[in-house]
Amino acid sequence: MSVDAVLTAAEAARTPMRRATPERRAAWLDAVAAALEAASAELTDLAAGETHLPLPRLTGELKRTTFQARLFGQELRSGELLQVRVDPADPDYGMGPRPDLRRTVVPIGPVLVFAASNFPFAFSVFGGDTVSALAAGCPVVVKAHPGHPELSRRTADLVVGALAGAGAPAGAFALIEGVEPSLVALRDPRIKAVGFTGSTKGGRALFDIAASRPEPIPFYGELGSVNPVVVTPAAWAERGAGIVQGWVGSLTLGAGQFCTNPGVILVPDPDGFVNAVDLPVPGRMLTAGLEEGFAEAVRQVGRHPGVRAAVDGPANEQGVHASVLSIDAADVLADPAVLEVEMFGPAGLVVGYASQDELLAVLRRMPGQLTGTIQGHSSGTDPLAVEVADALTETAGRIVYNDWPTGVTVSGAQQHGGPYPATTAPTSTSVGLAAISRFQRPVAFQSAPAALLPVELRDR
Amino acid sequence: MSVDAVLTAAEAARTPMRRATPERRAAWLDAVAAALEAASAELTDLAAGETHLPLPRLTGELKRTTFQARLFGQELRSGELLQVRVDPADPDYGMGPRPDLRRTVVPIGPVLVFAASNFPFAFSVFGGDTVSALAAGCPVVVKAHPGHPELSRRTADLVVGALAGAGAPAGAFALIEGVEPSLVALRDPRIKAVGFTGSTKGGRALFDIAASRPEPIPFYGELGSVNPVVVTPAAWAERGAGIVQGWVGSLTLGAGQFCTNPGVILVPDPDGFVNAVDLPVPGRMLTAGLEEGFAEAVRQVGRHPGVRAAVDGPANEQGVHASVLSIDAADVLADPAVLEVEMFGPAGLVVGYASQDELLAVLRRMPGQLTGTIQGHSSGTDPLAVEVADALTETAGRIVYNDWPTGVTVSGAQQHGGPYPATTAPTSTSVGLAAISRFQRPVAFQSAPAALLPVELRDR
Repeated sequence: MSVDAVLTAAEAARTPMRRATPERRAAWLDAVAAALEAASAELTDLAAGETHLPLPRLTGELKRTTFQARLFGQELRSGELLQVRVDPADPDYGMGPRPDLRRTVVPIGPVLVFAASNFPFAFSVFGGDTVSALAAGCPVVVKAHPGHPELSRRTADLVVGALAGAGAPAGAFALIEGVEPSLVALRDPRIKAVGFTGSTKGGRALFDIAASRPEPIPFYGELGSVNPVVVTPAAWAERGAGIVQGWVGSLTLGAGQFCTNPGVILVPDPDGFVNAVDLPVPGRMLTAGLEEGFAEAVRQVGRHPGVRAAVDGPANEQGVHASVLSIDAADVLADPAVLEVEMFGPAGLVVGYASQDELLAVLRRMPGQLTGTIQGHSSGTDPLAVEVADALTETAGRIVYNDWPTGVTVSGAQQHGGPYPATTAPTSTSVGLAAISRFQRPVAFQSAPAALLPVELRDR
Repeated sequence: MSVDAVLTAAEAARTPMRRATPERRAAWLDAVAAALEAASAELTDLAAGETHLPLPRLTGELKRTTFQARLFGQELRSGELLQVRVDPADPDYGMGPRPDLRRTVVPIGPVLVFAASNFPFAFSVFGGDTVSALAAGCPVVVKAHPGHPELSRRTADLVVGALAGAGAPAGAFALIEGVEPSLVALRDPRIKAVGFTGSTKGGRALFDIAASRPEPIPFYGELGSVNPVVVTPAAWAERGAGIVQGWVGSLTLGAGQFCTNPGVILVPDPDGFVNAVDLPVPGRMLTAGLEEGFAEAVRQVGRHPGVRAAVDGPANEQGVHASVLSIDAADVLADPAVLEVEMFGPAGLVVGYASQDELLAVLRRMPGQLTGTIQGHSSGTDPLAVEVADALTETAGRIVYNDWPTGVTVSGAQQHGGPYPATTAPTSTSVGLAAISRFQRPVAFQSAPAALLPVELRDR
């Protein structure tokens, strides 16, 4: 099917999907979740072959993906996601008589989703962007990631079949492949919003196109983040070895290919920290392109004034090895550009700080982040941890205490976002139930009789 | 004070304002409301001299402005505006053990507000953008509208004084003047979001700058809208003369200088409609520039194929007169560009439709609108009205029944926004309590001890 035909079908699905009740949309999501579960062995095998990720990880990710779809379904059935607000008419209202006013949300229209490479289920064809857009009632066109083409096609077939079986309009979902077709879709007036997960460079190029259309549209891009970790002296004294071990585990998990990978760690004793690092052989990376990009990013950080190579781990069969570099906070402050390089892979930068002031100064120079992590004293009353949390509040979307940022739960309170370049839309989240609001447009009805009101706005 | 000094002060206010409790922010808003009220005679006199708007209108607008500030204050005290959500830890969570996760919002950072000309109080120095940004805890830099410079300065003095008196940080608010300084501020990395109300052309130019910064920032622009009105045959038969009169009143109110001015009306009997139109002498427009822009827009619509001059009203002392033009729906469908021209002033376009299909086809070609109005049968069961409401749902932010779109109440359920070009941010509103969310960034705390949590996230 041509891109134009895909968009024509999406446009045709727009009105029927808007009119579909939340209960119907929930049934669509449930049907797809069931279809993916029924094919889980086939899907995880396909994924393992194309992504080199281990089967247990893929099985867990698929479970997360179907859980996520059903969670949106549950919330749709509860009515919570419509954000209904009713202000009855009030002749004595303080600024003058108020008419009856009732607000709900409608789908923003067809959504274009750029799938990510690193989560072949949870951020790909039927990942968080797709699920939250469908939950909102938007037709979705997914641009497949070339890192797992067969898995993408098979997943899309299952999604299309399950949606049709559950009575969703044809055009509710489609997969497209290739850069050029995706750019045609991005520029097409029928597309009304975009979801993207990937690199800062690629995401920014697409953002620029979305913003320069005759009708600019919201572009929800999750781009780059180095996810700083701060170790306080009290925590270091209490359990230094455990912190090093925990960090290495989080840093090298999945060959470091997570958007929440803790790529920068600020420590009071950098020599002691580095000496305790023991790096494992990393898993095979997703693609040769990522291997090259990772090696180049590590070289780029290594060229920064003051950066020292600290630890190199053993290489895997592709020649990729984990590595740790180090730098003094004073050198970071002299040229904070080093904080802007995301080494997407199993490499981290240890920043040694000499004082609380120096530590906080580095945190204030951090660009926007998805997460900020604090390793503080286990008593929970570490005064420096309080200062650090306050500073991170201005930079990060999620603040983690005595835990690691990798592993992002899907729930109502989740926030996966942050100031640029963490995302292009700092007031939104791409994970958790609030992700749906990216694709919902509020509409208020003034003095409307019941016959004109959406069901959720009528008097009970 | 130079723009740089203004921005330095705003940046310095950022952290203390974030740390200020909602109760403190509410007290700031109340203090400014009281100060404006105490100076109301002086302010409305100044406004009348600079804007040519009648005193009763200005008095009402000032009342609306202080009401709005106090309404945000009330809601801040209730805690509602923080959107707090707490997910307790759950070892048995469906996708795997869930940590304790608690979400609140923090201010996005210093906000640049471009004041509007047409509401010298409610959308100007201390208007909805400023109030909602201060309520969110953001320092605000307002670019004064040159249409009412003295009023802007006096209002700003009162705001600064009242904020200082209520203990707000210096730098919480500042006024700047002139295009060049505003562009310097717009490009400055310390500015984190923008509010704008004005023309499509001007707003788009500023949006483009905001989107092309090294760190692109949210640009909440309210641009152009023709606010279509649909008259059903049943309503026309029931009360045609009253509808014509109501429309003329809404169209010429305030010399037609409202963003919700009903500039296009679709009617089943255009000749009968036009014959019943009786246009008043319009009030003096805000500025000579608006007079010229209005005249040019009317000429532009008049040049559209199929458009006929229908009624010209008597001129005011500046030579401005109200006018009504007309066109057949078939000619609109042949070239819908005519729907994109906002005649900002007392002029309207009557579109005659020959069938329900033609009517709905025109509505589907409408660009994004702030409002859509239906004049239907008073029984509330007009079947065509139901179809029209459904169609308007995909185009407009607010749907009004048997009332007129001018007069926008400030309340919790209000939605003042819509797809481009009505706004540049279709998922947000610039009026009503939800306007605050434009300037709030969600932050989640994971497994954080009480000492690290903002007060609103702690266990009670």
